Amino acid sequence: MNFRTDLAVECHEYASEKHPEGVRVKKEQVDDVRITTITVESEQGERAIGKPKGRYITLEIAPLTKNSHLFSSQLTVLSRQIRALLPEKGTILVAGLGNDKITPDALGPRCVSFLLATRHINDELAKSIGFNNLRSVAAVVPGVLGQTGIESAEIIKGVVQNIKPSAVIVVDALASRSVSRLGTTVQMTDTGVSPGSGVGNSRAEISMNTLGVPVVALGVPTVVDGATLAFDILEKNGLQLKNGQKIHDVFASPVMMVTPKEVDNMIERAAKLIAMGINTALQPDIPAEDIVAIVS
Amino acid sequence: MNFRTDLAVECHEYASEKHPEGVRVKKEQVDDVRITTITVESEQGERAIGKPKGRYITLEIAPLTKNSHLFSSQLTVLSRQIRALLPEKGTILVAGLGNDKITPDALGPRCVSFLLATRHINDELAKSIGFNNLRSVAAVVPGVLGQTGIESAEIIKGVVQNIKPSAVIVVDALASRSVSRLGTTVQMTDTGVSPGSGVGNSRAEISMNTLGVPVVALGVPTVVDGATLAFDILEKNGLQLKNGQKIHDVFASPVMMVTPKEVDNMIERAAKLIAMGINTALQPDIPAEDIVAIVS
Amino acid sequence: MNFRTDLAVECHEYASEKHPEGVRVKKEQVDDVRITTITVESEQGERAIGKPKGRYITLEIAPLTKNSHLFSSQLTVLSRQIRALLPEKGTILVAGLGNDKITPDALGPRCVSFLLATRHINDELAKSIGFNNLRSVAAVVPGVLGQTGIESAEIIKGVVQNIKPSAVIVVDALASRSVSRLGTTVQMTDTGVSPGSGVGNSRAEISMNTLGVPVVALGVPTVVDGATLAFDILEKNGLQLKNGQKIHDVFASPVMMVTPKEVDNMIERAAKLIAMGINTALQPDIPAEDIVAIVS
Amino acid sequence: MNFRTDLAVECHEYASEKHPEGVRVKKEQVDDVRITTITVESEQGERAIGKPKGRYITLEIAPLTKNSHLFSSQLTVLSRQIRALLPEKGTILVAGLGNDKITPDALGPRCVSFLLATRHINDELAKSIGFNNLRSVAAVVPGVLGQTGIESAEIIKGVVQNIKPSAVIVVDALASRSVSRLGTTVQMTDTGVSPGSGVGNSRAEISMNTLGVPVVALGVPTVVDGATLAFDILEKNGLQLKNGQKIHDVFASPVMMVTPKEVDNMIERAAKLIAMGINTALQPDIPAEDIVAIVS
Repeated sequence: MNFRTDLAVECHEYASEKHPEGVRVKKEQVDDVRITTITVESEQGERAIGKPKGRYITLEIAPLTKNSHLFSSQLTVLSRQIRALLPEKGTILVAGLGNDKITPDALGPRCVSFLLATRHINDELAKSIGFNNLRSVAAVVPGVLGQTGIESAEIIKGVVQNIKPSAVIVVDALASRSVSRLGTTVQMTDTGVSPGSGVGNSRAEISMNTLGVPVVALGVPTVVDGATLAFDILEKNGLQLKNGQKIHDVFASPVMMVTPKEVDNMIERAAKLIAMGINTALQPDIPAEDIVAIVS
Repeated sequence: MNFRTDLAVECHEYASEKHPEGVRVKKEQVDDVRITTITVESEQGERAIGKPKGRYITLEIAPLTKNSHLFSSQLTVLSRQIRALLPEKGTILVAGLGNDKITPDALGPRCVSFLLATRHINDELAKSIGFNNLRSVAAVVPGVLGQTGIESAEIIKGVVQNIKPSAVIVVDALASRSVSRLGTTVQMTDTGVSPGSGVGNSRAEISMNTLGVPVVALGVPTVVDGATLAFDILEKNGLQLKNGQKIHDVFASPVMMVTPKEVDNMIERAAKLIAMGINTALQPDIPAEDIVAIVS
Repeated sequence: MNFRTDLAVECHEYASEKHPEGVRVKKEQVDDVRITTITVESEQGERAIGKPKGRYITLEIAPLTKNSHLFSSQLTVLSRQIRALLPEKGTILVAGLGNDKITPDALGPRCVSFLLATRHINDELAKSIGFNNLRSVAAVVPGVLGQTGIESAEIIKGVVQNIKPSAVIVVDALASRSVSRLGTTVQMTDTGVSPGSGVGNSRAEISMNTLGVPVVALGVPTVVDGATLAFDILEKNGLQLKNGQKIHDVFASPVMMVTPKEVDNMIERAAKLIAMGINTALQPDIPAEDIVAIVS
Repeated sequence: MNFRTDLAVECHEYASEKHPEGVRVKKEQVDDVRITTITVESEQGERAIGKPKGRYITLEIAPLTKNSHLFSSQLTVLSRQIRALLPEKGTILVAGLGNDKITPDALGPRCVSFLLATRHINDELAKSIGFNNLRSVAAVVPGVLGQTGIESAEIIKGVVQNIKPSAVIVVDALASRSVSRLGTTVQMTDTGVSPGSGVGNSRAEISMNTLGVPVVALGVPTVVDGATLAFDILEKNGLQLKNGQKIHDVFASPVMMVTPKEVDNMIERAAKLIAMGINTALQPDIPAEDIVAIVS
């Protein structure tokens, strides 16, 4: 493929076959949220859309850059979908991936800052402050390789070994092929993540395979790769790369990225939405307003 | 023109004539800094390159995203150029334009945070801390219209009326046509700025004309407009917009912007460079290291 | 007096006379908010409690460091009190005083960041987005003398001359004598403020007197002066300063301050409460939830 | 003891005996830095000053709130002391403890942001950018229990198990008894840390004992506990607590803290000083100026 995307819906959209074998697609509409569930069922499906076996759920929501009420139908839908992917018991570990010093990459760390961590609150204390059935939740912000010298996957693995959660949620900013996806899509999947996958960096994989517990990955596209955008523009205008020509020949700055002008604002709203989605999915007995009062 | 740029060198480069009447161009090299001075001398020159009469000095420097020593030749060159544009006496008011909540627009406010303001330090105090000949410097961060309801120009005008500086420096993030200019160019001009110029918003103009004192504008390009990038890519590949077709027909997201991945870092370094350029230009008697120790 | 406080209720409490002439005190309870209104009516009253003539309204509220719902009775009470102090027509200018780089001093600048500025929205645009009767509001963050070289009062004066508001609101962090007041008290007054008053710095005064329009000052105590705390502790334990002894003899660090451990959190909540108090006071026709969705 | 301090020099100063058995004290002066090394040699020594066996090195430096050049003698002294405490080979893991959202507690996280992490840079790459003999350094910011639900010690333990460093450095903000110590003292010790020690929380201990490798703790006092200050003031004035009376009876706000007014600035400078002390201790072959250019 000539472009980079972390979204299964885009992989599917641009696949060479229209209805590839081993890939099932289901579409629903709940209130104003469109839900697309893509299930990759076989290795044939994996090859067809370039994504590992598993479920990919995409929510299309109103733009996060618009003024919006937090307690909208999209939170309800998101919360229900998250709950359905998680085991009913045991500690949930939430890992906020990415670099909090680079705005469009800060989704994970910002999300953790709005999370209700409860693992350290014992039952007695919980009851004394009026919380019954408090689900145990822990969080970690592993930082990025360039700042820590440690793969996020290594840090998460260490935490999993020590606190033994029943599942892990990783939150991360995503890249999409299309600018219209930025801040308007939430993807969640039960396949985990492989940052820098394809580069053969197996130390970086964060999945059931490497951690031994289910891993749910949750993200929002926040950037389009510069080269991807260039390719997209060419293609839309009927211009093909010539034989042997590469996108970097026509667009010399692969280190550029495309973001909405209001990216700082978009990240903040996306972080709150996902954090509250997780909070309300895991603590169904606490009113959402009370959680907001605690975490913000 | 089919693209947006705040740089006079780009206006000149893409002008229909090669050597337009009324525009003088001078190129120099000082150490590793390339200096291009464009002087628009007449109305004919104004029409030719679409920029008001005055001097536009462009420094091409090593990328600000690279690891770099602050006290390099580029600081020396910048400082000398700034000093040459300013009156020798009287208070200098520095205005940091832009939105400090939107990273690529935060150059002005961040720059002011590294500035040595001295107007409130009287001679006696200055001498007692070992500073002779302290030049009077004041600073203001006017904010942005959407957050304040007030044009930056109105706030600056009010300050000028009250503190009566001999000149004003405005620092602002710029847009360029080419991604290769981002974080590698400093432009300074004696023409002031007209944010949103061309839109007929005369309340926004910040210039000798509106303030009654010389106005020097200093900036670094930090973004390329999404539509401009699209246009650039098409053109480089020999594809023309068809008759009547507009760039927004081929690239539907004019609210997107293109920035380097390390834009947060780039803004920080650019803000420090420009602030130290102003600081050392205005306080030639204080060692630069001492200024750094005070402001950071 | 041996201590520093910006609160009229504390000046009154520690005055030498119990019921000084020229000072009227009224107490009310509205829901869970206790309101004390002190009116200084004469010069005799001024001397008795050391505060200029005018009204000082103090709200005692639940601690801002506690988890709290924003839309509580305290917002309703605050909003009503603010509205009562302002003219019914004309632009309102809100100035956020203080240093946004020093946490307990950042109340003013943080408050402005949650403010709904509207002066730049014309009637047509307002109606098109569903807002009728939009009250004109403008905001300014003047910064601090040490960073700008300009008194806040000078910047505000310049803005007032240019945009001609019908009244000015200044928001500022306050000092109190008692640690129990920190984050639990809101003071508003129609007398304006004189930062560094008593030091004879008339350039700093922000009042009807200097601006020519009504000035309402709004603040929350966020620090106790180190020396004040020392004095308080001594006094509570029956220990008096000996003849000629000064508090600095017993407590050597007047540059220290006392704040709650959660001061960062407290400032954030105080800024939101005051901003929403102003927003809902000035835009009674817009639902508070809609304002929150816009400003946060 | 009636007060809280993390400093061995203060424990020693206020010990009931003047020269307790099992405690050795050595004082030196290097340039403008005073170095006090306290060695607790026996259990008797432990009981006498209330600190576990080990070496406690205290540097007294010029106030970090003052304008200061980074490359002063204090950096040289600090760097040499750090190097002497660490093994000569193997990866060093630096853990930045504390809460980056609470200014005086943010020393650890801020320090990591100025750290040169190198563990992910292989020898080939290092040489290609001109770095020979690059020492392997990794970093982690574990966050705080209230935000993550996980003890810092648990996260560090997990990382140690996975990356197997030869030693761990923990950086943390400290409490002192005396306000004059704030921002003027650096303590380093080979005993590790026990946050909340004395409360019997053994899960929190970070030491050779719990991690299996040497642990060096490095810190700067940034706060005085409110109750400690109260006690100090009483004592200095010859007032004793009466029989059975507790400090909380005379000072009702133990959740208050005392910090310098410029605490934000002080934390920033302290974080830079300690980070550069570690950086230059571990990378003696890279010029300090080059490290600064990379990390800032």
